[in-house]
Amino acid sequence: MKSSTGSVLLVDCPDKPGLIYNITKLLFDRQLNITKTDEYVDQTTNHFFMRAEMAGEFNKDLLVEDVKQALGADSNVRLISKQKKDVVALVTKEHHAIGDLLIRHHSGELDANIIAVVGNHRVLEDLVTKFEIPFHYVDHKGIDRTEHEQQILDIIKPYNPDYLVLAKYMRILNPTFVANFKHRIVNIHHSFLPAFIGANPYRQAFNRGVKIIGATAHFVTDNLDEGPIIHQDIIEISHRDSARDMSRAGKDVEKIVLASALKLVFQDRVFIHGNKTVVF
Amino acid sequence: MKSSTGSVLLVDCPDKPGLIYNITKLLFDRQLNITKTDEYVDQTTNHFFMRAEMAGEFNKDLLVEDVKQALGADSNVRLISKQKKDVVALVTKEHHAIGDLLIRHHSGELDANIIAVVGNHRVLEDLVTKFEIPFHYVDHKGIDRTEHEQQILDIIKPYNPDYLVLAKYMRILNPTFVANFKHRIVNIHHSFLPAFIGANPYRQAFNRGVKIIGATAHFVTDNLDEGPIIHQDIIEISHRDSARDMSRAGKDVEKIVLASALKLVFQDRVFIHGNKTVVF
Amino acid sequence: MKSSTGSVLLVDCPDKPGLIYNITKLLFDRQLNITKTDEYVDQTTNHFFMRAEMAGEFNKDLLVEDVKQALGADSNVRLISKQKKDVVALVTKEHHAIGDLLIRHHSGELDANIIAVVGNHRVLEDLVTKFEIPFHYVDHKGIDRTEHEQQILDIIKPYNPDYLVLAKYMRILNPTFVANFKHRIVNIHHSFLPAFIGANPYRQAFNRGVKIIGATAHFVTDNLDEGPIIHQDIIEISHRDSARDMSRAGKDVEKIVLASALKLVFQDRVFIHGNKTVVF
Amino acid sequence: MKSSTGSVLLVDCPDKPGLIYNITKLLFDRQLNITKTDEYVDQTTNHFFMRAEMAGEFNKDLLVEDVKQALGADSNVRLISKQKKDVVALVTKEHHAIGDLLIRHHSGELDANIIAVVGNHRVLEDLVTKFEIPFHYVDHKGIDRTEHEQQILDIIKPYNPDYLVLAKYMRILNPTFVANFKHRIVNIHHSFLPAFIGANPYRQAFNRGVKIIGATAHFVTDNLDEGPIIHQDIIEISHRDSARDMSRAGKDVEKIVLASALKLVFQDRVFIHGNKTVVF
Repeated sequence: MKSSTGSVLLVDCPDKPGLIYNITKLLFDRQLNITKTDEYVDQTTNHFFMRAEMAGEFNKDLLVEDVKQALGADSNVRLISKQKKDVVALVTKEHHAIGDLLIRHHSGELDANIIAVVGNHRVLEDLVTKFEIPFHYVDHKGIDRTEHEQQILDIIKPYNPDYLVLAKYMRILNPTFVANFKHRIVNIHHSFLPAFIGANPYRQAFNRGVKIIGATAHFVTDNLDEGPIIHQDIIEISHRDSARDMSRAGKDVEKIVLASALKLVFQDRVFIHGNKTVVF
Repeated sequence: MKSSTGSVLLVDCPDKPGLIYNITKLLFDRQLNITKTDEYVDQTTNHFFMRAEMAGEFNKDLLVEDVKQALGADSNVRLISKQKKDVVALVTKEHHAIGDLLIRHHSGELDANIIAVVGNHRVLEDLVTKFEIPFHYVDHKGIDRTEHEQQILDIIKPYNPDYLVLAKYMRILNPTFVANFKHRIVNIHHSFLPAFIGANPYRQAFNRGVKIIGATAHFVTDNLDEGPIIHQDIIEISHRDSARDMSRAGKDVEKIVLASALKLVFQDRVFIHGNKTVVF
Repeated sequence: MKSSTGSVLLVDCPDKPGLIYNITKLLFDRQLNITKTDEYVDQTTNHFFMRAEMAGEFNKDLLVEDVKQALGADSNVRLISKQKKDVVALVTKEHHAIGDLLIRHHSGELDANIIAVVGNHRVLEDLVTKFEIPFHYVDHKGIDRTEHEQQILDIIKPYNPDYLVLAKYMRILNPTFVANFKHRIVNIHHSFLPAFIGANPYRQAFNRGVKIIGATAHFVTDNLDEGPIIHQDIIEISHRDSARDMSRAGKDVEKIVLASALKLVFQDRVFIHGNKTVVF
Repeated sequence: MKSSTGSVLLVDCPDKPGLIYNITKLLFDRQLNITKTDEYVDQTTNHFFMRAEMAGEFNKDLLVEDVKQALGADSNVRLISKQKKDVVALVTKEHHAIGDLLIRHHSGELDANIIAVVGNHRVLEDLVTKFEIPFHYVDHKGIDRTEHEQQILDIIKPYNPDYLVLAKYMRILNPTFVANFKHRIVNIHHSFLPAFIGANPYRQAFNRGVKIIGATAHFVTDNLDEGPIIHQDIIEISHRDSARDMSRAGKDVEKIVLASALKLVFQDRVFIHGNKTVVF
């Protein structure tokens, strides 16, 4: 029960008349100033979404209670104070995605603190420790996936992160691991999903002779490569590009798509709705 | 004083607390359902913009009055029934922009009726009349610009159009002509404004050796090529493209940018704010 | 055995040293001026491709013979005089793709003559005949696919077209039909292949919650949606777009991608190599 | 006079018949294998450009001599062994461009060695030295531009770099400084040149209300922002973006455009021709 300035109100509930009126009334009564607001109604599921940035002093818990009471028991209401998220990144061997995040973190533009990095190879240890961030090496050789993930979990848990970021972590995660961070794991997939699901998407793209490749940032769910998509982008290629050329060229779009998606997530602009996202 | 369903409410006024609350209250009191709403506050000028799509039966004039009273004398409030706009197009010689609009019009996807086309050359008469649309030829040779524009005005006025579209009309319009259709003339400029203002932008682009060219759809004001920009897009070029190649390649981006801008304008999604636009 | 100016020489063969030297020697000996040339070696299959635009007078058949002799029996050598291709378009109900081609054809920018249009519905007959192009209606109701395609074939054959264009023809073609026009049928598929193969790609894209949709122009082979890709492009969408919105927005990218692919094909810039293309 | 494998031959000269034939003959005679080749004739200036990647053993100096003799005294012929370029970067305060280059350098994908960084502020010293690269601080306060540039020159000269990279170096360079590195300084300009030449391009873009902003990588010449353009790219913005938002969003396109341009330059794919580039 604390007062707060610079907050974000996130509301979603079944649609009905008067929702915006009822919510803004509660804000107006508290003399809160709405500096930015977005609403959306999903016509397929008849579901309402609202995000409001507010300035002013108020009792946070009471406001959430009042909004919930006004909208009904089937509403989701969250009030988030604007502050940097705590993040743990998982990596394998590639520099570009984690390197980009480290530079953004170092310059203060990330909207998040990278509090640790976990890798199943040692390749990136040198890079990560340059930035005075703990690097935890968890070898996957000689143990099964469940045991490997348990070791990772034991390392991550004490950090109590808001989000996990898979910055080119090249192993599949078990549902039991994912369940620990429901809707809080963001992955960058190196293809334009749902094209080229699975392994070696650049090789698949090369074999198919496509003229455009892409990258997809998405939340991780139990089904590999099928979680809600946050952001995608593409680059043009030609017959002159080998699978290796594509892989190299793809790194730029991968790292920018991941960073763009994380910016949206860390600024609390993304609702998850079934296997889709609503992005304000 | 008529009732209306499927309407768009457009409001802009100096920003102050409670605007959304006050507006949605008036809609809620009338049991109007908001199906889509957007708001924006320009922080530089402290000005508020709102667009709401509504369904339901109501007295249109009374609602506008009530909103105006609630928001103050310095507010702009418009309530627009969703219906196709009436449009007159001005052309010179090029087929692509007017051709694209004619096909969209013919297939019913334009959100507007093209009620007449005026040309300062006869080149496009055959194409336009295929679609049973009146084509008016107004030769500019031997008369001065003012006289030429007066003749065009005499032809257009009886049509009483909502908008004029300059679909590659290659002559400059006098402020006195423009004043007849304030904020109601949309032009497609064949460059990525403000780069290459003025004549022969593709030649200018070629001489400068740029790697990207574009097109800009904007409202026409007194200052050539300086009206509020509605939409822009680009295409990549290379040293291999001559000025003529660029001109040909540019046609596709010109016609799509113009059509996209017109869709926004005809759906009442564009506010003009100084020399800029707010596009919902 | 005729002489020719403004020709395109197309060569492909297994790669070996001296190919460019041997080919350009034969052109130089004839005092032909190469105005534009492109070469490419596919490293995977070790195959060489060359396209040369030439100016000058020469014996066409003799040159082809000499090049073939210099490169060996396993070379493909074609010499094409620059002239407009003859094209028959197949359509169903949608205006945008065929409409765009008709406007380009009418304005003389298509690099091809549309000599006839065949439709399995009457919807587009009015539009096509405006442009004085024969429209043939071949109803598919009450007959099986083979019989329907035979009727279409009987209509097309006398026109002896260089290419067939499927301008949103919404039926699958049998291999026996396709065999009549090997590597000479171009289709526009309304998805970013290989994502969303099959029917209703916009509905599939909506259900998956993607942030980008696209269109793919490809040659038609026996396997639906698996022919060599010529060109692709994309547009960004958001949660706000319904499947119907996507379908509408997709029309612009579909028609531009189709026209761009046809420009490449009609200018003899596309080699087919297995299930891929080499595009100069 | 050394032999060499993995070389790039760069030729440009006035166009005349037989150039490709004459050049490839000299390569064929030496049994050199051409693995990749590109040619282009600028029709405006009637100038020929060719770039060939070759494999094989040969006497480098003799080949250059022979090609020059075959093409004439007004030809430019260079033979470059493929190896990483030595680069000195100049910076001011911003992290994104130099940070991106440092990560690429660290992971070995840059095609160049960053051998030193010079800054007119100390802000980036910490970041640069993390990567064990010398950082030289040259304060510009209290001295005039000529004196400042002389101090920088004294530092750079001993490194004998192939190229200077202005990675958001926010000061104008005198022609006398530029003359030391003719056609060897690459700058990233934070606007879509020639739009918004000069200072504060994001502020200018905001004031003009454009819907797209961009970045331009170019060679530095005596005239600020007018050097030959190597690469450009853009991002879409809207009325919701402040000048500060644009500046932040622009960083991603700036760093990717700079890195893409440098890749082309370092791989010897860029010819400078007047105030333009030919990029293979």
